[in-house]
Amino acid sequence: MPKGSKRSIPAGKDLPRCMRGRSKLLDSLERLANIRLIALDIDGTLTDGQVVYSVEGSVQRYSVHDGQGLVWLRRLAGVQQAWISGRAGSPARRRAKELKVECLRLGVGPKGPVLRSVQEELGIGPEQTLSMGDDLPDLALADGSALFVAPRNARGEVRQRADFVTKANGGAGAVREVCEWLLYAKGFWPPAPGQNPEGSAGSSPAHEEGAAG
Amino acid sequence: MPKGSKRSIPAGKDLPRCMRGRSKLLDSLERLANIRLIALDIDGTLTDGQVVYSVEGSVQRYSVHDGQGLVWLRRLAGVQQAWISGRAGSPARRRAKELKVECLRLGVGPKGPVLRSVQEELGIGPEQTLSMGDDLPDLALADGSALFVAPRNARGEVRQRADFVTKANGGAGAVREVCEWLLYAKGFWPPAPGQNPEGSAGSSPAHEEGAAG
Amino acid sequence: MPKGSKRSIPAGKDLPRCMRGRSKLLDSLERLANIRLIALDIDGTLTDGQVVYSVEGSVQRYSVHDGQGLVWLRRLAGVQQAWISGRAGSPARRRAKELKVECLRLGVGPKGPVLRSVQEELGIGPEQTLSMGDDLPDLALADGSALFVAPRNARGEVRQRADFVTKANGGAGAVREVCEWLLYAKGFWPPAPGQNPEGSAGSSPAHEEGAAG
Amino acid sequence: MPKGSKRSIPAGKDLPRCMRGRSKLLDSLERLANIRLIALDIDGTLTDGQVVYSVEGSVQRYSVHDGQGLVWLRRLAGVQQAWISGRAGSPARRRAKELKVECLRLGVGPKGPVLRSVQEELGIGPEQTLSMGDDLPDLALADGSALFVAPRNARGEVRQRADFVTKANGGAGAVREVCEWLLYAKGFWPPAPGQNPEGSAGSSPAHEEGAAG
Repeated sequence: MPKGSKRSIPAGKDLPRCMRGRSKLLDSLERLANIRLIALDIDGTLTDGQVVYSVEGSVQRYSVHDGQGLVWLRRLAGVQQAWISGRAGSPARRRAKELKVECLRLGVGPKGPVLRSVQEELGIGPEQTLSMGDDLPDLALADGSALFVAPRNARGEVRQRADFVTKANGGAGAVREVCEWLLYAKGFWPPAPGQNPEGSAGSSPAHEEGAAG
Repeated sequence: MPKGSKRSIPAGKDLPRCMRGRSKLLDSLERLANIRLIALDIDGTLTDGQVVYSVEGSVQRYSVHDGQGLVWLRRLAGVQQAWISGRAGSPARRRAKELKVECLRLGVGPKGPVLRSVQEELGIGPEQTLSMGDDLPDLALADGSALFVAPRNARGEVRQRADFVTKANGGAGAVREVCEWLLYAKGFWPPAPGQNPEGSAGSSPAHEEGAAG
Repeated sequence: MPKGSKRSIPAGKDLPRCMRGRSKLLDSLERLANIRLIALDIDGTLTDGQVVYSVEGSVQRYSVHDGQGLVWLRRLAGVQQAWISGRAGSPARRRAKELKVECLRLGVGPKGPVLRSVQEELGIGPEQTLSMGDDLPDLALADGSALFVAPRNARGEVRQRADFVTKANGGAGAVREVCEWLLYAKGFWPPAPGQNPEGSAGSSPAHEEGAAG
Repeated sequence: MPKGSKRSIPAGKDLPRCMRGRSKLLDSLERLANIRLIALDIDGTLTDGQVVYSVEGSVQRYSVHDGQGLVWLRRLAGVQQAWISGRAGSPARRRAKELKVECLRLGVGPKGPVLRSVQEELGIGPEQTLSMGDDLPDLALADGSALFVAPRNARGEVRQRADFVTKANGGAGAVREVCEWLLYAKGFWPPAPGQNPEGSAGSSPAHEEGAAG
């Protein structure tokens, strides 16, 4: 049983529906169960790749399904998150704060060294890292990760290089799929009905400590 | 004839087009006619599940078709509405005000107890409640309702659990479909041509009192 | 030749591409050439029917293709426009100003009497009016118009009642199609290459007066 | 080998995936390699053609994939850019600044003379200009360019006139495709892995001077 999992892997009837028929994913459950850090590109991965400009600044669109998945991943399975983007001044800060993402790197240069510094800071190696991105600069994340996932809408070159491609587009559930893969592999799927929804006022620190321990 | 209906159920030619060919829906007309409260998740049900972040805050997209349906449902058939969301600080407050939704619960924890408190407050039981949601925390709404509906874009697990799945996605008419089912079942379809459009200045309190009575 | 047209109807090779294969439209050229007023619903017709709510207010999305078509229709063919919406406080005012739409009715009640008052004010009768809408309250516009057009995304009941349904959705070129039908029928298609693009600083009042005369 | 290219044209396996199976494009590599200026319409080409209106002003949506392509095109291949729009007061100014587009012409009249003045200012002739647009006023750009490209969502008349039509829609990667064609033809594809992502803080002026020289 993978280190850090709290429950046994649920029976087949509880397989997340987004994993059905994906035998390559099911063959990778052990590698998925081993992941302790997910490193996410922002534009095109957590969003649909569109940036909206107004007279006051830029705007981004995120998926509530993704957010719910990331909250479960943190609270139940204690997986660390890093969001890494080449664009500075992005409203990603606000979304990251709402989801309690602690490791946020905006306006960075080449992403390979950035990922390495995050891994050193957290004491998590490439073999326990899953990364996700949609454009060519994100391939530097792939080089430092055990698994690299591309959202469906990624550039062709990135999809080709990815270990897995999600069924959903960036900003429309691509990250949620990866969360469900990890939750299932780690034995936390489906989330218990009593779990708070994303962003709800009631936090459960005791639970979090347990899950992260 | 169901309690509270004002007109007889119209002939087949007046069947809302979104109900055509849906025999299971037509078999449930009596249960639909009995509904007095609809409890709606917000993100992914009344919206497309995307949350837009700017430097000032978050933004949500609603459907005008949904709004028109909800106005008819309230004015003609006197059905109560509750909007329930785990996210706080949402601009849902503004949309709810425009549509005169009185029962708005934002930033809540698990949704089961919230629905129960709404039902107690209104004196309406689960057997007269229809609820609607798109993600796993919304299944707690299903447990307290006679009917549970999922928008087409709901997570697979939620669609599987639902009594009905709409043809339209959340934020693109899913709620409107449910409004038309209820209006038809209660004998208020199609709305009389003189009805004011959604949000129009002219209110019709006498009509509302009659419908809600 | 229809009253008010400035050029002969162009040869077949200049048929707007959105009219190709639409024989019923081609059979209606005379009726289209006779139109002097177009009355447009806003949400779902000039927009995609989504209303975006932020902490500051609501937001709507318009199509630049529609805008360009409406500018040509006004400048070249002198067709009057009325925008009619049940929703008040809409940002439609800003878009209408940019496109120099003079007749804007927001927050109105039933649309039939509103259209009649517009027609009286302009001295244009139902037989010279084309209207367009996507939801059931817009059917009141149909009753006061020679031609009623529904965008592709209209409610089924509205599409069924319409004389024509556009290929494009509301907010994505539906209004542009109607503009091209009218421009062609009136002999102004294709617009001369020297025409200013939508919203450009350089106005051409002399041309406008001629076209409107 | 085309003037200004820094590397030999890469082998077939490095063909950008968006160029696969497009033999007409591959036959035009020499003409593409010769391009030194790209002139872009904004609404419908760099955006999806929707303009969002709020109480404060209008808003536009851009693609991050496009932005990344334009940054590579400027930094690696030294291609000049001009953005030309008939609409004034557009938030395009902010997006253009982020991407360091120096030649921005907003609120202009007919686009033919505007393109000519840009070409004179830069000392680049029509035979080294590629332009791109989606609506009939943009055909004036085609007249002053060696190559004219239409995004997939362009009006039919514009697609018909174009030398090439992109696979992607405006605002969803149409401009990125053209950037990849040019980068490939000029021998800069794929970008070296060490390249900074779009908008990253670290600039590389030495590289830029070399590429632009």
